[in-house]
Amino acid sequence: MAPVTSDPHSHPEYELLYHPQIPGRGEFIRLAFEAVGVSYTDVANDKKDGYSEVQSICMNDEINSSDGNPPILAPPALRVPGAGPDGTALILAQTPNILFYLGEKLGLVSTAEADKYHTYQLVLTALDLNNEIHDSHHPIAPSAYYEDQSAEALKKAADVRNARLPKFFSYFERSLQHNHTNGGGKFLIGGRLSIADTTVWQVLDGAYFAFPNEMAARKAEYPELLDTFYNSVKQEPHLKQYLASGRRRAYGMGVFRHYPELDRQA
Amino acid sequence: MAPVTSDPHSHPEYELLYHPQIPGRGEFIRLAFEAVGVSYTDVANDKKDGYSEVQSICMNDEINSSDGNPPILAPPALRVPGAGPDGTALILAQTPNILFYLGEKLGLVSTAEADKYHTYQLVLTALDLNNEIHDSHHPIAPSAYYEDQSAEALKKAADVRNARLPKFFSYFERSLQHNHTNGGGKFLIGGRLSIADTTVWQVLDGAYFAFPNEMAARKAEYPELLDTFYNSVKQEPHLKQYLASGRRRAYGMGVFRHYPELDRQA
Repeated sequence: MAPVTSDPHSHPEYELLYHPQIPGRGEFIRLAFEAVGVSYTDVANDKKDGYSEVQSICMNDEINSSDGNPPILAPPALRVPGAGPDGTALILAQTPNILFYLGEKLGLVSTAEADKYHTYQLVLTALDLNNEIHDSHHPIAPSAYYEDQSAEALKKAADVRNARLPKFFSYFERSLQHNHTNGGGKFLIGGRLSIADTTVWQVLDGAYFAFPNEMAARKAEYPELLDTFYNSVKQEPHLKQYLASGRRRAYGMGVFRHYPELDRQA
Repeated sequence: MAPVTSDPHSHPEYELLYHPQIPGRGEFIRLAFEAVGVSYTDVANDKKDGYSEVQSICMNDEINSSDGNPPILAPPALRVPGAGPDGTALILAQTPNILFYLGEKLGLVSTAEADKYHTYQLVLTALDLNNEIHDSHHPIAPSAYYEDQSAEALKKAADVRNARLPKFFSYFERSLQHNHTNGGGKFLIGGRLSIADTTVWQVLDGAYFAFPNEMAARKAEYPELLDTFYNSVKQEPHLKQYLASGRRRAYGMGVFRHYPELDRQA
């Protein structure tokens, strides 16, 4: 991997376009910046009327998002001033897509072909689990209230906890074991932090918030994942600083929600 | 984009590892090969005991999939003999990941940065819709029977048809309009076929199978997408040949299923 500098002058003024307040899918992107100490503007949280700007770009009904870029289905998006074809801004949507772009720019993905695509494989799988955990409280309609689908959510959450978490956790645990010689349980690919690590870590952290009983009960089953890996990522110097800062948003009513009735019952 | 040759000797012997018989998520990968006339082995369908091989690589509980590659959560996977770090096989999982890898190798994605990531954006969004259509018949538990979640499926399918299809179709329609000068409604990015086109097309084709009434009722709302684009992709020379061949599998009990009760009622 090319070394990356955290000198802000060596990077464009990256802008994250996402909903304000919640970590949500934007958090996967924040973690990439934070992991290497590269600055970015979180438009909805940092700029006056920032959320209007996010909405006008990512939630419009036009044939362009902005600056000649194609339309966007939904936030998050990334705006990179000057990186578009004619020196305009490049605007990218889709969480994994943004992570793949930034992974290269920030040195958070290997340039070796096999490692690169194996990193993508882990990122995509972690984001699939993120979606499934979201669906545990919204199994029927993403735009309707939880209260209007809480009966179905009870069933969906049981399947997510009983069948899906073990399937994904076993996969991540074995991925860490596969890479143990290089990663020592701390890294999923090779011997240093990548977007695979930050992305898997964030899903685990969200799962701890959503399902504290379930996670406590399962912790011993996946020691490399839920102990070594989960704790070591938190100790990465830049991430440690970030997690203690006001920039790290609390979970609430986003992708990860804690409804006690959806967790394992004591 | 670099021109690609369909001379089989200029490509490795690609192998698709997926479930037999159904199109499923493997179909997105088949379409990439078929669109450029590059040969591949569909292991479960083409080889004796092929599905055992798929299962031993993609559905095992080991810390390796095969040939020193990391584990895999689920099929599809791609095996590329000789492309691994030490001259062993490279094995990749995750549908979008495989498409991004092949997009580059087969000349189905632009090498220009903005176009490349905008192509990825469309591929990922189309695959999100693919997942939502899958969930319309399996909203509670992917491994349980439809019959055990048919009441919830009625509600989920109504939301997919009434809210989600229009949201995604409007997005794809506007993407085609955005690219109209270059693509003429036939291509989503630039002036030639990409993995964005084959992937969006396959989701539309599956939606036609799953929800024939709904699609008929909506056809006039999205003329560029459901008329110009949908029909022109089918006329791409290699794809036309493929769709008429025995290699194209019929839909059945996979991602796309036709349950009349989940479709719009006449």
